[in-house]
Amino acid sequence: MEMTGAGERKFLRAGFGVSRLRALPPDSLDALAAEVRELITEVVGENGGHLGSSLGAVELCIALLRKFDPLEDRIIFDVGHQSYPYKILSDRLERFPTLRAQGGVSGFPRRAESPFDHFDTGHSSTSISAALGYAKARDLLEQRHHVVAVIGDASLINGLAFEALNHVKETQTRLIIVLNDNKHSISPRVGGFATMLARLSTSTSYNKIKFAVKECCRALPKGDALEKTLEGIRGQIKSLVKPQNIFDELGINYWGPFDGHNIGEAEMIFDLARRYDRPVLLHFSTVKGKGFPEAERNPTKYHQMAPRSERESPKALTWSEAASGAVERFAQVDGRVVCLTAAMETGARLENFRARFPERFFDVGIAESHMLTLAAGMAAGGLRPWVFIYSTFLQRAMDQLTHDIALQNLPVVLMVDRAGLVGADGETHQGLLDVAWGRAVPNLEIYAPADEPSLRQMTAHAASRQGPTLLRYPRGPLPRVLCTGREPLSPILLRDGEEWALVGHGVTVRILLEARELAACAGLPTPAIVDLRRLKPLDIDFIDEILKHYPTVAVAEEGYLAGGVGEAIASRAAETGAAATVRRLGAPDRFIPHGTAAQQREFCGLTVEDVLSCGAGLSAAHTA
Amino acid sequence: MEMTGAGERKFLRAGFGVSRLRALPPDSLDALAAEVRELITEVVGENGGHLGSSLGAVELCIALLRKFDPLEDRIIFDVGHQSYPYKILSDRLERFPTLRAQGGVSGFPRRAESPFDHFDTGHSSTSISAALGYAKARDLLEQRHHVVAVIGDASLINGLAFEALNHVKETQTRLIIVLNDNKHSISPRVGGFATMLARLSTSTSYNKIKFAVKECCRALPKGDALEKTLEGIRGQIKSLVKPQNIFDELGINYWGPFDGHNIGEAEMIFDLARRYDRPVLLHFSTVKGKGFPEAERNPTKYHQMAPRSERESPKALTWSEAASGAVERFAQVDGRVVCLTAAMETGARLENFRARFPERFFDVGIAESHMLTLAAGMAAGGLRPWVFIYSTFLQRAMDQLTHDIALQNLPVVLMVDRAGLVGADGETHQGLLDVAWGRAVPNLEIYAPADEPSLRQMTAHAASRQGPTLLRYPRGPLPRVLCTGREPLSPILLRDGEEWALVGHGVTVRILLEARELAACAGLPTPAIVDLRRLKPLDIDFIDEILKHYPTVAVAEEGYLAGGVGEAIASRAAETGAAATVRRLGAPDRFIPHGTAAQQREFCGLTVEDVLSCGAGLSAAHTA
Repeated sequence: MEMTGAGERKFLRAGFGVSRLRALPPDSLDALAAEVRELITEVVGENGGHLGSSLGAVELCIALLRKFDPLEDRIIFDVGHQSYPYKILSDRLERFPTLRAQGGVSGFPRRAESPFDHFDTGHSSTSISAALGYAKARDLLEQRHHVVAVIGDASLINGLAFEALNHVKETQTRLIIVLNDNKHSISPRVGGFATMLARLSTSTSYNKIKFAVKECCRALPKGDALEKTLEGIRGQIKSLVKPQNIFDELGINYWGPFDGHNIGEAEMIFDLARRYDRPVLLHFSTVKGKGFPEAERNPTKYHQMAPRSERESPKALTWSEAASGAVERFAQVDGRVVCLTAAMETGARLENFRARFPERFFDVGIAESHMLTLAAGMAAGGLRPWVFIYSTFLQRAMDQLTHDIALQNLPVVLMVDRAGLVGADGETHQGLLDVAWGRAVPNLEIYAPADEPSLRQMTAHAASRQGPTLLRYPRGPLPRVLCTGREPLSPILLRDGEEWALVGHGVTVRILLEARELAACAGLPTPAIVDLRRLKPLDIDFIDEILKHYPTVAVAEEGYLAGGVGEAIASRAAETGAAATVRRLGAPDRFIPHGTAAQQREFCGLTVEDVLSCGAGLSAAHTA
Repeated sequence: MEMTGAGERKFLRAGFGVSRLRALPPDSLDALAAEVRELITEVVGENGGHLGSSLGAVELCIALLRKFDPLEDRIIFDVGHQSYPYKILSDRLERFPTLRAQGGVSGFPRRAESPFDHFDTGHSSTSISAALGYAKARDLLEQRHHVVAVIGDASLINGLAFEALNHVKETQTRLIIVLNDNKHSISPRVGGFATMLARLSTSTSYNKIKFAVKECCRALPKGDALEKTLEGIRGQIKSLVKPQNIFDELGINYWGPFDGHNIGEAEMIFDLARRYDRPVLLHFSTVKGKGFPEAERNPTKYHQMAPRSERESPKALTWSEAASGAVERFAQVDGRVVCLTAAMETGARLENFRARFPERFFDVGIAESHMLTLAAGMAAGGLRPWVFIYSTFLQRAMDQLTHDIALQNLPVVLMVDRAGLVGADGETHQGLLDVAWGRAVPNLEIYAPADEPSLRQMTAHAASRQGPTLLRYPRGPLPRVLCTGREPLSPILLRDGEEWALVGHGVTVRILLEARELAACAGLPTPAIVDLRRLKPLDIDFIDEILKHYPTVAVAEEGYLAGGVGEAIASRAAETGAAATVRRLGAPDRFIPHGTAAQQREFCGLTVEDVLSCGAGLSAAHTA
């Protein structure tokens, strides 16, 4: 994919922002939209990010910023994949090339970044709940502004969004929901809801509505007559929209569908919605990747792009590929093996599995909670479900893991991808909670492979186990093999050493090995290196041996320190009265902002230097 | 409330079970239903439990057990509140008087208890996902049995159930969903969905459907003609059911509404549904508390009953009452204070709050995830939301707590009721994860009051804090005041001592004080007692002091040991090289079954004797 250069832009120049946008004549807006698209493809091509959704939302963002007061009114983007045009046009034009870089513009809405952002997001389907909260706050505090939730069709099928839709009627307040329907989540959307939206999109009412709205808007300039005209139009719109749909059922007025790439039409609709005194859902049809032919043709591929540097580096096998490959091999020999994902077929590299075993592949859409309980039912029914889920999204299904899978000790395997620090996606996407939360769940076993042979052993164990297993692995390419021929799943002493031992799991093992190489240089004794492999249950005898042999033990993990494995090991020392001092390295009690994974390791104190500093006390003893 | 004695029963005698039930003539079933009701009111009156839902489901359970094969077919009850009649009739008659007692029949479906139970539950809205899982397992393993989810109308509005409903169409498999619509969750149900169900219930199609079904069933005995008749009936049923509703929209055939107390009608419908080859939802209207006039009149009060022993003991102020009272006082002086609950108005004792501040009270129904994101939106909009939630149900909303509340550091207060061991409700309702999971969430502060003055201080702090606060308190009556006049929120040395210190929070403080009384008796030095109060962030200076002064420190908590505060304190000892041995008491890596809270403390090793055993090593030293 080639990005075209910037060229001379007519609108997007220094100082362009909301006030200039609002002053532009309508006939120049399409040209502006083209410039916004150009800038987005340019920056995303360089830095990586979410391309398709943002390209599809350019006209909607322009119309929203012109018809609402984006400082007073609360425009809340769901997920945030589609918010780049909004960011560019709401006074972040100059900073936009820093997208997703450390200290730069976040890939998601952030209140701390701009007064135009009203709610932090990253996970899907929160916008209607948040908007309802803002709306009730407005009512109780006797304010007057508008609240607008902008949500994609894929987010709408998540249970959280449904709970909010169900509650809207009850709250009896003004609320505008903009449904940006591009017919896709990351993969094509799933389920009965999708079919209903498709039916609405092709219903004959479409043209009638367009006509009614145009009629109304012709009346707009007349000022005084406006109210009456609108009154009439409301009735017309309501009676014209057939068939009745789920939104009407839930007591939310449905208007649409409209063309989400027609700025004039969108502005008219927003004008009408502003004057409406009850909850209303505005259904806009858009094209994911609009204006960028390759992305329009292949919306899944262009949903998210890696940074240019990653795209241009030689292709190495990733953890995701190795993990899905391992499960394919089990599926080949065991007809009970099924594979589940919540809209992450591409991210988790399950395309091959789907192609080979279509009957045993389940993409449930963005519905992590359902996915885990579904897996529990499958396992109770005699199947062997493998659930592929990102660590950060497992947060959505912890009760289902505990209450539905672990309680019944069912043989479900959780393949937890993107565990640890994830880089440019930032705070909302870090995989730092799975270990702390998972350790407290009875019956669950937890593993973290540091290389592919370990991954194979662990998946083989999980495949045969009569109980739930969680296997966490990071984003990115597989590292070289550390050590072969290790058979048991217990921890392994990778390298011998003196006076101190460094204990890690998954990605941190490599950092510890690097520290070992540099220890002598730093005037420190050579530390022993332990790859923990199984995080729950811990091999207590092994841990006791380590605590007995090494006066200093440091545990490093890509996870929060609170509740981490480091605490478990340190607790064992304090319980047995072992003389060892136990230091812990891991994520501090903070949300970790976007940047590269290396920058985030620095932020967390997980660098080679940090590891070496754990030996500080030993230096004198050794050289003495 | 008085329970009538058993009397001589005609059907429910020793040996009555599924086979006899299925052999009974139709005209004796109403009398059987009356006996089942009598037994339920008798046992629940004595042992406590869920009365209203079970009384309302007697006829449905009879019809299910007669028309399905309850060993081969998978009947899955949602929540399980309504499963007592099923338990009684599926070969657990003799054991039913042990309901909710240690080692006795569980208050919820349990696979380990009976081959008639196919999925463990306790939390709501899992049944459709689990049933779909079973159905896909059946298809892939080439089995033929039926799968039936029995779900209440209140459970249906939870996001998990919606995610499953949305997925049903996609799976293209046979599935029967029995909607037991009693128009209530624990409190009256909430939202747009409720209105839709009500509209369906009163639609004129009702009588037409009944007629159509009766016509069909007249045709049943003729055998061969059956298929054709059913074919015709399907069409009739489909065309008669108007208005179109959400289930049709989602691609699930909707049949109903039917009378859920008419066994004959229910059996006919089940016969039809068995022969249907696609997903179908059967809507039954029932009366919560049916057959027990007081419960019919006041379904909220009789949703759950306390055991006779608790009902007859003198009324003491409960933790829930004290907590809601405290928040009422804040609401009185601060118009920004709002209160949220997910269908737990009664359990959390919020009736007064609702009566005094109806505009500022939000019962969202069984929708914990939405509740937390709604609270985040409210806080972002300038309100001060107080969320009342049971510890076990907070598991449903951990991502919302992390991603929506904590990430933005919003001033939401989580009033976490039923924290710790809860007694008769058993495994699914224990509040043992909030501390371990909450400790890893940045920006969150966690408190546990041991008495009412502490509760007041902590709520006052939470009310003024610019960030999220979690306050956990147990089920049951407030204890006597431990100590007054404590001002700071840091930990407090309640009693001085020698050689060892006992550290607790919340309910365990009292156990530690009791142990101290008995220490001399046991030949042990007198331990110091610490009430930790704030669990996150820990007061490190205070902890260091304790670890320095006392060679043995024991930490006791009603929460899982893994990830608990005990680990944090022990880790601090191991990190600083403190000489103290740190022992930890808390829930082991197991699910804790039903029984009394005292029995559960024994199970967990949280008794006074267990505490004293932590001093075992000290005994000799002291007496030496």
